Formats: sequence, structure tokens, C-alpha cells
Amino acid sequence: MKIVIVGGGAAGATAAQFARKQSRDAEIIVIEKGPYPEYSRCGMPHAISGEIPSLTDLIEFSEKWFEINKIDLRLSTHVTSLDARGKKVESSGPSGACSESYDALILATGAVPSLPEIEGIQSGAELMGGVFIFRSLDDAISLMKWCEVRARKVLIVGAGLIGLEVADALNSKGHKVTVVEYLDSILPAMIDPDISDSIASAAKDASIELITSSSVDAIIGEESITGAKVLSGKVSDSRIIQCDTVVIATGQHPLTELAGMSGCMLGKQGHIKVDDRCETTVKGIFAVGDCSEYRDMITGEPSPAGLGTLAVKMGEVAGKNAAGGSARLQKGFLNSRVTRLFGLEIAATGPLASSLSNCGIKVVQSRIKGSTLPSYFPGGDELLVKLTSSKDGSLLSCQIVGKKEAALRIDIVSSMISAGKGAKDLAQIENAYAPPVAPCVDVLAAAAQGILIKIERKG
Amino acid sequence: MKIVIVGGGAAGATAAQFARKQSRDAEIIVIEKGPYPEYSRCGMPHAISGEIPSLTDLIEFSEKWFEINKIDLRLSTHVTSLDARGKKVESSGPSGACSESYDALILATGAVPSLPEIEGIQSGAELMGGVFIFRSLDDAISLMKWCEVRARKVLIVGAGLIGLEVADALNSKGHKVTVVEYLDSILPAMIDPDISDSIASAAKDASIELITSSSVDAIIGEESITGAKVLSGKVSDSRIIQCDTVVIATGQHPLTELAGMSGCMLGKQGHIKVDDRCETTVKGIFAVGDCSEYRDMITGEPSPAGLGTLAVKMGEVAGKNAAGGSARLQKGFLNSRVTRLFGLEIAATGPLASSLSNCGIKVVQSRIKGSTLPSYFPGGDELLVKLTSSKDGSLLSCQIVGKKEAALRIDIVSSMISAGKGAKDLAQIENAYAPPVAPCVDVLAAAAQGILIKIERKG
Repeated sequence: MKIVIVGGGAAGATAAQFARKQSRDAEIIVIEKGPYPEYSRCGMPHAISGEIPSLTDLIEFSEKWFEINKIDLRLSTHVTSLDARGKKVESSGPSGACSESYDALILATGAVPSLPEIEGIQSGAELMGGVFIFRSLDDAISLMKWCEVRARKVLIVGAGLIGLEVADALNSKGHKVTVVEYLDSILPAMIDPDISDSIASAAKDASIELITSSSVDAIIGEESITGAKVLSGKVSDSRIIQCDTVVIATGQHPLTELAGMSGCMLGKQGHIKVDDRCETTVKGIFAVGDCSEYRDMITGEPSPAGLGTLAVKMGEVAGKNAAGGSARLQKGFLNSRVTRLFGLEIAATGPLASSLSNCGIKVVQSRIKGSTLPSYFPGGDELLVKLTSSKDGSLLSCQIVGKKEAALRIDIVSSMISAGKGAKDLAQIENAYAPPVAPCVDVLAAAAQGILIKIERKG
Repeated sequence: MKIVIVGGGAAGATAAQFARKQSRDAEIIVIEKGPYPEYSRCGMPHAISGEIPSLTDLIEFSEKWFEINKIDLRLSTHVTSLDARGKKVESSGPSGACSESYDALILATGAVPSLPEIEGIQSGAELMGGVFIFRSLDDAISLMKWCEVRARKVLIVGAGLIGLEVADALNSKGHKVTVVEYLDSILPAMIDPDISDSIASAAKDASIELITSSSVDAIIGEESITGAKVLSGKVSDSRIIQCDTVVIATGQHPLTELAGMSGCMLGKQGHIKVDDRCETTVKGIFAVGDCSEYRDMITGEPSPAGLGTLAVKMGEVAGKNAAGGSARLQKGFLNSRVTRLFGLEIAATGPLASSLSNCGIKVVQSRIKGSTLPSYFPGGDELLVKLTSSKDGSLLSCQIVGKKEAALRIDIVSSMISAGKGAKDLAQIENAYAPPVAPCVDVLAAAAQGILIKIERKG
């Protein structure tokens, strides 16, 4: 049994780990184009902010770990061609060209930042001095070194998760940060617009300038950047924002060249399609992590697997199956997600309101504020909860913002959604209560109660 | 429709609240023997510690609230007799004797501290100066006043929840505290002995002396207490511990005199039996809170409803039903519980190991340590998790100790147990992950994985 894994990120390394757990004897090769063994991408903004002392702390599976587990890790190595019929992979690395046959292949090829159409930025060409993307450890190292020299005036293109995490990190280090977002609201892929207001307001309190409904039309500079032309979509006016640093954070697209070569079917957004065994449409080829898509548990629609947790879940399933096991994913992903920005914990599970609406799912929503502690106990932090159910009360999604304890509450809702439970069950949750820890009636139960009342009134 | 509620604590006041929600017109009378409207008993130790500024902050349902909701609250009023056939209650209060008929009666009579057999303490007689119980707001006021005079040398009898919460509070105010517990381990009704060690060790670090496997045989003093004779059960030796303050915290027993008068059936431990409508065996009479028992969700055995959360759940169900509604409790209680002691959050759901064993339930256990944050992120706090399932993997109980975030994780397990889910579901939980918030693979998933591995090996 010989398993070749292309890509040594969270998905690929986890696949290797579980392939080894499944089979003591399998020959396992991981081919990684970058120079580092697996590291936490999600941790990178926190190394920039200084919360994590060093970027190299982010390495989770060390070269030593691969050695001990008898996994052949080949760094700085590119796969040059793939023969799916002959089950052979050609690669080129520090020790020259190499050909490997395989019994099972796992594609964990990841994604790369999408570059928007901006004058001065050319896909494939080198970026102007001071212009950065933020995907690899080397990207983070470059940005960090650039910003170490002096206080920078930073323009971030895109107010998604990565854009805002980098904004928060650089702002906390004393740089002046402006974020330009094309859409009307921030974190558009993570939370609904009506929840994002409180975060936008926290960003402003932290002295970050947010410019929504606008796009960066051009970057200006010769050797290095000196400014950017920002176009307001609504009034079609433009202005120049002076800056010496630009970070492009306008999303990513999956790397699927090898999948294409091997005939694996791709989804509408270009991700590799997999079944609940993480197998692609080509038998013996699995795909995991950012390059792949599975299904959304609520809508049933294809859902790109763009989260670290999903990379690990898929890695486990694919690794076991590639080594002869029989593991399966759950029936779909809820995309439970969280970030900490500007002192707020922002967490969500299940589809956005817009996705539910696009799928024609009629919903009931409850939006309330509560606290982490009983009203009589000083020091409680406010929690804003938006809970969504179907017309019959089945739980569909939840979004929570607060200074803390949002993520664990999202985990409660996520487990109830996975269990197929409804607002009635959440309203009756038997929570642990003590005055210095949590209130007697949790804000989640109150939100669920809100849904039940709405359903009762309409019913 | 006329509803009489005997007892204005959390259970009784919540019953009044939901009776009013159910019926705008019902006449609702609450007869409370104490001088205060509903207050949080659980908060009392935290007012003693100073975390809550004043004991009166603990009042949750004010007299004004009762007024606004047109609920006739009669404080300092005792029920003197009950005629269940004639549906009549006689009472005596500040404005004299009074007789009220009722359509529905709700018994929320609560419990009183059990006094152990100690020489110098006589049931019914006044306690010696410096000797306290800890149940009512007046008990807390008396203890607080006594301890305000000077630094005290306090002996606490009983290392249950109340004993240790009072110990922690008094210790934090600079008093010297010794706790004597009859059993071998502390918090014996809350967690298993193998989990209690870390808490005992934290108590010692906080300079609290813990003496287990021992009992207080006598208290010594004339006008006020000067010492206590402590007997070690194992070696039958005794010693005198000097102290000027004793707090008796050796459990409580339900107040069921009225239930007895009206022919309501009582359980083995003397609590009033109720069905899932919170109705007693006498039609039209409901019972809620500390005086009642329902059923344990896991063992099916009778379970005293001795938690604030359960008082509120029962109050809601009984209040609605008494006013003509049709509410039901869930199939049983998990007794989800939490406390914060000596800087630790200690949370649990489901039966103790001893209860499971007594019921002949064979279990699989996983005991592991994890962290609130990924290993590479500084500042994570250790979490000790003990997870228990049946032989087929169904989740039965969980106990967690850590500096924080134990309770919310218990809520996750509690909701999964209620949903009838197993270790496999918990292992696959789709949790929200971000480096500064929570790890990619939560300690709960790891604990569940531990159970799956044990089952696989045995299977």
C-alpha cells in the first residue's frame, strides 16, 4: 500500500497522520511545494500582532514528527505531472526529478489568493514593493519584516476574515490601517449585515478606517507603493488614499490543476467534488481541505471546505480511507466559524441569511441581547445572538457577537443542529448555572424562546 | 381561575410569572414565609465575598414586579393549614389570619438545612452564638455581620457545594477557614472522587484546611462557640479545633408538611413526587423546586430537584399548567451543575459514577487533559475532562474542571445527551475554531475519541 499526498498543510498532514494510524506498514509520501512542514495559517495574524511570540511557533507537525511516524515528507517539491490511469506522480524538488507510483492519491493542494482587477497589479507578475498577499508563512514573514522597519500606513483590500484579522494585528502594532470593502458590510462571508454593524463600530473605536461599498481601482507608485485610488461604487467618485503598504485580501481560489489533469469533477466555484469518503469522482483519488467542496448540511448545496476544522475532519477521513479504512464525513458541513477582532469574539454556524433565502428556505429569526452572567453579578459581558430556524422550528443557523464565550455557545447550537433538534429543545437546554459563571436562563434559551413565540403567533 | 402558590423562592416566583403569562385574568397569590421577595440563593456566597456589592442586589423579582404583574405577594406569611378536598388554604401573616380558596395550588415550599447530630446543637433550639446555617438571606446577613466584626477562625461542617462556596468566600475575606467532611472526598454530590483531587489541592493552595473522613462530634462554648471536637472516622481519634465561627452545611431536607396534609405522595428521600406536568399525585396540586423530585434522565430513578435551573424549569411548567396551559418537562433531569471555587470552574452533567454503578449501568470512561487554546497560542488554561458513556457509546455524563469555560462545554455535552447522541457524534462535533479563542480539535472531541478507541478495543 503506497499513498501519495500532494500538499502538506493542515488537510494533507492530517491525512498523513490518520493514514499512518490506519496502517502501520503503508508507504506514505507527502509532497509539499513550500519550504515548511505543516503550520497553522489561522495563527499567522496573531504572530504579526505579537500574541504568538514567533511565526515558527505555528509549526504543528514538525519534520521530526514526520520522521518518527515514518512519513516521507518532501519539502520545496512541486508535482509536475499526474497520470491518473497509470497511478503515477512526477515531481521536481531539491534532489531533482522523481517519479512515484501510488495506490491512493490525496489531493490537499489548497488555494491561492485571488487578485482583483487593480491597475498596477498583474496576475503572475511580481507585486510592487509594499504590496502583499497573505496566504503562506513566507507571505506573513515578508509583511512582518516590511512593517518592522517603521510605522506604516496600510491599506487593506477586502474586509473578510483575513483582511480584518491582518488589519487588527497591524493596528495593534501601531500602524495606521484603512480597510476598503467592495460590499456594503464587513465579514460578508461570515455573518449577516445586520450583525456586522457592532463589529464595524468596534473597528472604528480601535481607530481603523473602514470604507465599504468601495473598491481599489489602482495602486500608485514606482519602486514601491505610495497610494491607491479608491472608487466609491455608489456615487462613482474616486479619491487617492496615501499609503506605503497594501495587503490584498479579496478571497482565494482553489488549486485544482492536478485534479483537472486526472479528470476529477469540479464544482461551480472550481473546487474538487468529493463524496462522504472524501473520494473524488476518480476512484482512488481523494481530495481534502481548501481545494475541495462537500455539501452544506442545511441547504444541501456544494460548500467549499475553507476552514481549518474541516481540513482536519476531511484529512482524517481521507487518510483512513486511503489506507484501507472506512471512515465517513457527517451528512454535511455547518461551517462553524469564529474570529476575534477588535476585542470581540464573532462566531457563527450554519448558512448566512442570504444563502437560506437563495435556496428558498423560509425562516424564523430571533435577535436578542443577553449577558454572560446573571444581571445581579457585576462584570457580565453583553452577547448579541441571532438565531434562525425553519418555519417548523428546526434550528438552521446562529451568529453571536460578544467579548467572550460566543464560540462555545455556537458549539452548543452546532451540536443541536447536527442532532436535528429544534428551537424547543434549545429553549429547554439543561445548562449549568452559577452566578459567577453563567446565568440561570442562557441567552441561547431566550433566543430559542423568541422563535417559539413567533411561530406560535403566526401558527 | 384562582391560583395559590406557597413559597416565593425561584420556583414559586417563576410559577407565578408563567401563570400570569398563561392567563391575564387569573387571580394569583404567592404566600411567602420570609420577609423578602424572590432572591438568588446561589448568589449569597458571592455577596459575602464582596463580588456582589450587596445582599439586596440578589433580589430578582422585586415587590414592584409582583405589583405590576398583578400578583398578590404576601410576605412574612405562614400557611397554617391546607384542606385539599375543600381546596382551601389558611394562613397567618402581618395582617392577621386569612383563608383562601384555590382552583390550583402550587407547593414551592423549598427545603431547610439538615442539622447533623452534634453535641451542642439541638434541632429546633436556637443555635449557639457563632454557629450558623446558610439557607436564607437572613442566614447570610447574620453570618456576614458576625464576620464583619473581626477576622474569624471558621469551621465549616460539610464540604459540599454550599460549604465550600462559603469557605471560599470567607477565606477570600481574610478569615481562617477549616472544612470538615465526613466522606473521603469533597463535593461528593457533585463530582466523582477522582475529579475532586485537583479541587482539594486548589483549596489547600488557597490556605484552606480540608479534613476529610472526619466528623464534628461536639461544639464547645458557653455564650458563643470556642471550639469543636473533630473525630477522625478511620482511627477513632479526636481533637479539638479552636474556632469562633461554625457554619453547618451538611445538606438539606425538603419541607413537605403541607404536601403531607394534602395526601401528596412522597419519594424515598421525602420529596414530593410529580409527573412531567409538575402535578403531584393529588389532582390540582403542583410541586416545584427543592421540595420536589422528578426523574433522572439517565438512570430513570427519582431525582431531587435541588438546582436553581430546575426550580425555574419546573416553575414555568407548573405555572402554565396551573393556569390552564399544557406544558411538560423533558423526559428527565441531567442535573447540569457548576460552581467556581478557589479559582476553578467545576462543572458536571449527568449522574455520578457511583449512581451509575448502583443502577447497574456498565460504562466506558475517558479521562483526559486538554487546553482552552491551541498549544501554540500562549495563555491557554488546562481543562480536565472525564466523559462517560454506556458500553454502546451513548453519552451518559461528563465532569470538567478548569480555570474557565468548563460550564459551556458541559452545556454542549448536556445538549448532546438530551438529544440521545453518542461519543461518535461528540467526536465529530463541528466546533468553531480560531487560535485566540478555541483549539481546532476540542478537548471534548478528544475525550469522545478516547471512548471510541476503548469501545473498539473491547469490541
